[in-house]
Amino acid sequence: MAKAKPDIFALNARLKADSAFVAALPLCDMRLMREERWFWLLLVPRLPQAEEVFDLTAPQQAELMAELAFAARLLRQTAACDKINIGALGNKVRQLHIHIVARAENDHAWPEPVWGQGARQEPPAERHNARFAAIKAALAALAPENGQKPA
Amino acid sequence: MAKAKPDIFALNARLKADSAFVAALPLCDMRLMREERWFWLLLVPRLPQAEEVFDLTAPQQAELMAELAFAARLLRQTAACDKINIGALGNKVRQLHIHIVARAENDHAWPEPVWGQGARQEPPAERHNARFAAIKAALAALAPENGQKPA
Repeated sequence: MAKAKPDIFALNARLKADSAFVAALPLCDMRLMREERWFWLLLVPRLPQAEEVFDLTAPQQAELMAELAFAARLLRQTAACDKINIGALGNKVRQLHIHIVARAENDHAWPEPVWGQGARQEPPAERHNARFAAIKAALAALAPENGQKPA
Repeated sequence: MAKAKPDIFALNARLKADSAFVAALPLCDMRLMREERWFWLLLVPRLPQAEEVFDLTAPQQAELMAELAFAARLLRQTAACDKINIGALGNKVRQLHIHIVARAENDHAWPEPVWGQGARQEPPAERHNARFAAIKAALAALAPENGQKPA
Protein backbone atom coordinates (compact mmCIF):
# COMPACT_ATOMS: atom_id res chain seq x y z
CA MET A 1 0.00 0.00 0.00
CA ALA A 2 1.38 3.40 -0.98
CA LYS A 3 2.26 5.67 1.91
CA ALA A 4 1.35 9.34 1.75
CA LYS A 5 4.43 11.55 1.40
CA PRO A 6 5.17 12.88 4.89
CA ASP A 7 5.16 16.63 5.28
CA ILE A 8 8.67 16.63 6.71
CA PHE A 9 11.72 18.09 5.00
CA ALA A 10 14.15 15.50 3.71
CA LEU A 11 17.07 16.32 1.47
CA ASN A 12 16.99 14.58 -1.89
CA ALA A 13 19.49 11.68 -1.96
CA ARG A 14 21.32 12.95 -5.03
CA LEU A 15 21.75 16.47 -3.66
CA LYS A 16 22.99 14.94 -0.42
CA ALA A 17 25.53 12.74 -2.17
CA ASP A 18 26.77 15.51 -4.48
CA SER A 19 27.33 18.17 -1.82
CA ALA A 20 28.39 18.80 1.79
CA PHE A 21 26.47 20.67 4.47
CA VAL A 22 27.99 24.07 5.27
CA ALA A 23 25.47 26.01 7.38
CA ALA A 24 21.81 26.37 8.24
CA LEU A 25 20.54 29.80 7.23
CA PRO A 26 17.08 30.73 8.53
CA LEU A 27 15.27 29.23 5.51
CA CYS A 28 17.85 27.27 3.56
CA ASP A 29 20.63 24.81 4.10
CA MET A 30 23.80 26.06 2.43
CA ARG A 31 25.82 23.24 0.89
CA LEU A 32 29.10 23.00 -1.02
CA MET A 33 29.04 21.00 -4.24
CA ARG A 34 31.67 18.29 -4.61
CA GLU A 35 32.82 19.47 -8.04
CA GLU A 36 36.40 19.76 -9.13
CA ARG A 37 35.75 22.26 -11.90
CA TRP A 38 33.86 25.00 -10.07
CA PHE A 39 33.46 26.53 -6.60
CA TRP A 40 29.74 25.97 -6.31
CA LEU A 41 27.20 26.45 -3.52
CA LEU A 42 23.66 25.13 -3.18
CA LEU A 43 20.81 26.63 -1.22
CA VAL A 44 18.03 24.21 -0.32
CA PRO A 45 14.96 25.63 1.43
CA ARG A 46 13.92 23.31 4.25
CA LEU A 47 10.39 23.11 2.88
CA PRO A 48 8.90 19.74 2.02
CA GLN A 49 7.47 19.46 -1.48
CA ALA A 50 8.58 22.89 -2.75
CA GLU A 51 9.57 22.62 -6.42
CA GLU A 52 9.03 26.09 -7.87
CA VAL A 53 9.71 29.51 -6.35
CA PHE A 54 5.99 30.23 -6.48
CA ASP A 55 5.37 27.28 -4.14
CA LEU A 56 6.80 29.51 -1.39
CA THR A 57 4.82 32.11 0.51
CA ALA A 58 5.72 35.75 -0.12
CA PRO A 59 7.76 36.02 3.12
CA GLN A 60 9.59 32.79 2.24
CA GLN A 61 10.33 34.15 -1.23
CA ALA A 62 11.78 37.35 0.24
CA GLU A 63 13.89 35.34 2.68
CA LEU A 64 15.09 33.08 -0.12
CA MET A 65 16.24 36.10 -2.10
CA ALA A 66 18.02 37.58 0.91
CA GLU A 67 19.86 34.30 1.48
CA LEU A 68 20.60 33.96 -2.22
CA ALA A 69 22.12 37.42 -2.43
CA PHE A 70 24.03 36.75 0.80
CA ALA A 71 25.44 33.49 -0.53
CA ALA A 72 26.27 35.00 -3.91
CA ARG A 73 28.18 37.86 -2.32
CA LEU A 74 29.96 35.46 0.04
CA LEU A 75 31.04 33.32 -2.90
CA ARG A 76 32.11 36.37 -4.92
CA GLN A 77 34.36 37.41 -2.05
CA THR A 78 35.73 33.93 -1.37
CA ALA A 79 36.33 32.39 -4.79
CA ALA A 80 38.62 33.71 -7.49
CA CYS A 81 35.95 34.58 -10.03
CA ASP A 82 34.59 37.08 -12.50
CA LYS A 83 30.85 36.38 -12.39
CA ILE A 84 28.32 34.57 -10.25
CA ASN A 85 25.85 32.28 -12.04
CA ILE A 86 22.55 31.49 -10.36
CA GLY A 87 20.16 28.82 -11.48
CA ALA A 88 17.04 27.01 -10.32
CA LEU A 89 16.40 24.26 -12.84
CA GLY A 90 15.06 21.11 -11.18
CA ASN A 91 14.72 19.08 -14.37
CA LYS A 92 16.57 16.14 -12.84
CA VAL A 93 15.95 16.71 -9.12
CA ARG A 94 12.57 18.29 -8.49
CA GLN A 95 13.18 19.34 -4.90
CA LEU A 96 13.70 23.11 -5.01
CA HIS A 97 17.39 23.95 -4.89
CA ILE A 98 19.32 26.95 -6.13
CA HIS A 99 22.78 26.76 -7.65
CA ILE A 100 25.24 29.58 -7.00
CA VAL A 101 28.39 29.09 -9.01
CA ALA A 102 31.63 31.06 -9.17
CA ARG A 103 32.64 31.50 -12.81
CA ALA A 104 35.97 32.64 -14.18
CA GLU A 105 36.65 33.74 -17.72
CA ASN A 106 39.18 30.94 -18.10
CA ASP A 107 37.12 28.16 -16.52
CA HIS A 108 36.20 24.84 -18.10
CA ALA A 109 32.96 25.90 -19.74
CA TRP A 110 33.09 29.70 -19.98
CA PRO A 111 30.92 31.39 -21.20
CA GLU A 112 28.52 28.44 -21.35
CA PRO A 113 26.60 27.33 -18.24
CA VAL A 114 27.99 24.72 -15.84
CA TRP A 115 24.85 22.61 -16.19
CA GLY A 116 24.91 20.11 -19.01
CA GLN A 117 28.73 19.83 -18.99
CA GLY A 118 28.91 16.08 -18.45
CA ALA A 119 29.13 14.17 -15.18
CA ARG A 120 30.15 15.80 -11.93
CA GLN A 121 33.87 15.49 -11.27
CA GLU A 122 34.75 14.60 -7.70
CA PRO A 123 37.37 17.05 -6.40
CA PRO A 124 40.50 15.92 -4.59
CA ALA A 125 39.80 16.01 -0.84
CA GLU A 126 42.38 18.75 -0.45
CA ARG A 127 40.55 21.06 -2.84
CA HIS A 128 37.13 20.31 -1.40
CA ASN A 129 38.41 20.87 2.13
CA ALA A 130 40.10 24.14 1.21
CA ARG A 131 36.88 25.49 -0.30
CA PHE A 132 34.90 24.27 2.67
CA ALA A 133 37.25 25.99 5.11
CA ALA A 134 37.23 29.20 3.06
CA ILE A 135 33.45 29.46 2.95
CA LYS A 136 33.13 28.63 6.65
CA ALA A 137 35.70 31.29 7.50
CA ALA A 138 33.90 33.87 5.36
CA LEU A 139 30.62 32.99 7.08
CA ALA A 140 32.19 33.21 10.51
CA ALA A 141 33.68 36.62 9.71
CA LEU A 142 30.22 37.92 8.80
CA ALA A 143 28.24 36.22 11.55
CA PRO A 144 30.65 35.29 14.33
CA GLU A 145 28.05 34.08 16.80
CA ASN A 146 26.20 31.41 14.93
CA GLY A 147 27.01 31.62 11.24
CA GLN A 148 23.33 32.10 10.49
CA LYS A 149 22.84 35.79 9.77
CA PRO A 150 21.81 36.54 6.19
CA ALA A 151 22.52 39.86 4.51
CA MET B 1 38.04 61.60 -24.24
CA ALA B 2 36.18 58.79 -22.49
CA LYS B 3 32.73 59.68 -21.27
CA ALA B 4 31.58 58.51 -17.86
CA LYS B 5 28.87 55.87 -18.08
CA PRO B 6 25.57 57.71 -17.55
CA ASP B 7 23.48 56.57 -14.60
CA ILE B 8 20.43 55.98 -16.79
CA PHE B 9 18.89 52.61 -17.54
CA ALA B 10 19.43 51.44 -21.09
CA LEU B 11 18.60 47.94 -22.27
CA ASN B 12 21.57 46.01 -23.63
CA ALA B 13 21.44 45.87 -27.44
CA ARG B 14 21.58 42.09 -27.61
CA LEU B 15 18.78 41.60 -25.09
CA LYS B 16 16.74 44.13 -27.02
CA ALA B 17 17.28 42.39 -30.34
CA ASP B 18 16.62 38.91 -28.95
CA SER B 19 13.34 39.70 -27.16
CA ALA B 20 10.16 41.78 -27.29
CA PHE B 21 8.81 44.09 -24.61
CA VAL B 22 5.73 42.69 -22.86
CA ALA B 23 5.06 44.80 -19.77
CA ALA B 24 6.63 47.10 -17.22
CA LEU B 25 6.42 45.59 -13.75
CA PRO B 26 7.31 47.92 -10.86
CA LEU B 27 11.02 47.00 -10.94
CA CYS B 28 11.55 44.99 -14.11
CA ASP B 29 10.67 45.02 -17.76
CA MET B 30 9.13 41.69 -18.74
CA ARG B 31 10.18 40.60 -22.22
CA LEU B 32 9.44 37.61 -24.46
CA MET B 33 12.42 35.87 -26.02
CA ARG B 34 12.30 35.37 -29.77
CA GLU B 35 13.13 31.66 -29.59
CA GLU B 36 11.43 28.97 -31.58
CA ARG B 37 12.33 26.13 -29.24
CA TRP B 38 11.07 27.44 -25.89
CA PHE B 39 8.45 29.76 -24.41
CA TRP B 40 10.87 32.00 -22.54
CA LEU B 41 10.51 35.23 -20.59
CA LEU B 42 13.13 37.70 -19.43
CA LEU B 43 12.98 40.05 -16.47
CA VAL B 44 15.32 43.02 -16.66
CA PRO B 45 15.47 45.32 -13.63
CA ARG B 46 15.47 48.93 -14.79
CA LEU B 47 18.61 49.64 -12.78
CA PRO B 48 21.70 50.98 -14.51
CA GLN B 49 24.89 49.03 -13.89
CA ALA B 50 23.34 46.17 -11.89
CA GLU B 51 25.11 42.92 -12.75
CA GLU B 52 24.68 40.69 -9.69
CA VAL B 53 21.66 40.25 -7.41
CA PHE B 54 23.72 41.66 -4.56
CA ASP B 55 24.08 44.92 -6.46
CA LEU B 56 20.42 45.54 -5.57
CA THR B 57 19.23 46.99 -2.27
CA ALA B 58 17.31 44.65 0.04
CA PRO B 59 13.91 46.11 -0.99
CA GLN B 60 14.87 45.80 -4.67
CA GLN B 61 15.89 42.17 -4.09
CA ALA B 62 12.55 41.41 -2.45
CA GLU B 63 10.68 43.08 -5.31
CA LEU B 64 12.76 41.18 -7.86
CA MET B 65 11.83 37.89 -6.21
CA ALA B 66 8.13 38.84 -6.11
CA GLU B 67 8.21 39.66 -9.82
CA LEU B 68 10.22 36.54 -10.58
CA ALA B 69 7.72 34.30 -8.79
CA PHE B 70 4.87 36.17 -10.47
CA ALA B 71 6.36 35.71 -13.93
CA ALA B 72 7.21 32.06 -13.27
CA ARG B 73 3.67 31.29 -12.18
CA LEU B 74 2.26 33.22 -15.15
CA LEU B 75 4.41 31.21 -17.53
CA ARG B 76 3.54 27.93 -15.82
CA GLN B 77 -0.15 28.71 -16.34
CA THR B 78 0.26 29.92 -19.92
CA ALA B 79 2.73 27.54 -21.54
CA ALA B 80 2.33 23.80 -21.93
CA CYS B 81 5.14 22.76 -19.63
CA ASP B 82 6.32 20.51 -16.84
CA LYS B 83 8.91 22.67 -15.10
CA ILE B 84 10.05 26.25 -14.94
CA ASN B 85 13.78 26.92 -15.23
CA ILE B 86 15.18 30.13 -13.80
CA GLY B 87 18.65 31.44 -14.44
CA ALA B 88 20.75 34.54 -13.93
CA LEU B 89 24.03 33.94 -15.73
CA GLY B 90 25.34 37.09 -17.37
CA ASN B 91 28.50 35.53 -18.79
CA LYS B 92 27.83 36.99 -22.24
CA VAL B 93 25.64 39.98 -21.37
CA ARG B 94 26.61 41.50 -18.05
CA GLN B 95 23.50 43.64 -17.55
CA LEU B 96 21.43 41.85 -14.89
CA HIS B 97 18.66 39.84 -16.52
CA ILE B 98 16.79 36.78 -15.35
CA HIS B 99 15.66 33.99 -17.65
CA ILE B 100 12.36 32.22 -16.94
CA VAL B 101 11.88 29.31 -19.28
CA ALA B 102 9.00 26.87 -19.72
CA ARG B 103 10.39 23.35 -20.04
CA ALA B 104 8.61 20.23 -21.20
CA GLU B 105 9.83 16.68 -20.79
CA ASN B 106 9.81 16.26 -24.55
CA ASP B 107 11.48 19.56 -25.47
CA HIS B 108 14.63 20.03 -27.53
CA ALA B 109 17.15 19.90 -24.71
CA TRP B 110 15.38 18.19 -21.80
CA PRO B 111 16.69 17.62 -19.14
CA GLU B 112 19.68 19.77 -20.00
CA PRO B 113 19.52 23.58 -19.67
CA VAL B 114 18.44 25.80 -22.54
CA TRP B 115 21.61 27.85 -22.28
CA GLY B 116 24.51 26.58 -24.32
CA GLN B 117 22.27 24.85 -26.90
CA GLY B 118 23.61 26.65 -29.94
CA ALA B 119 22.38 29.84 -31.54
CA ARG B 120 18.97 31.30 -30.87
CA GLN B 121 16.39 30.12 -33.41
CA GLU B 122 14.05 32.86 -34.62
CA PRO B 123 10.46 31.69 -34.28
CA PRO B 124 7.92 32.04 -37.09
CA ALA B 125 6.00 35.29 -36.58
CA GLU B 126 2.83 33.31 -35.99
CA ARG B 127 4.34 31.40 -33.06
CA HIS B 128 5.94 34.48 -31.52
CA ASN B 129 2.71 36.44 -31.84
CA ALA B 130 0.66 33.63 -30.31
CA ARG B 131 2.94 33.47 -27.28
CA PHE B 132 2.93 37.24 -27.00
CA ALA B 133 -0.87 37.35 -27.08
CA ALA B 134 -1.12 34.51 -24.54
CA ILE B 135 1.16 36.14 -22.01
CA LYS B 136 -0.52 39.54 -22.44
CA ALA B 137 -3.92 37.92 -21.92
CA ALA B 138 -2.72 36.12 -18.80
CA LEU B 139 -1.32 39.39 -17.45
CA ALA B 140 -4.52 41.26 -18.21
CA ALA B 141 -6.59 38.59 -16.47
CA LEU B 142 -4.50 39.01 -13.32
CA ALA B 143 -4.13 42.79 -13.38
CA PRO B 144 -6.89 44.20 -15.60
CA GLU B 145 -6.17 47.86 -14.90
CA ASN B 146 -2.55 48.25 -15.86
CA GLY B 147 -0.90 44.86 -16.19
CA GLN B 148 1.61 45.87 -13.55
CA LYS B 149 0.59 44.09 -10.38
CA PRO B 150 3.11 41.51 -9.21
CA ALA B 151 2.10 38.51 -7.10
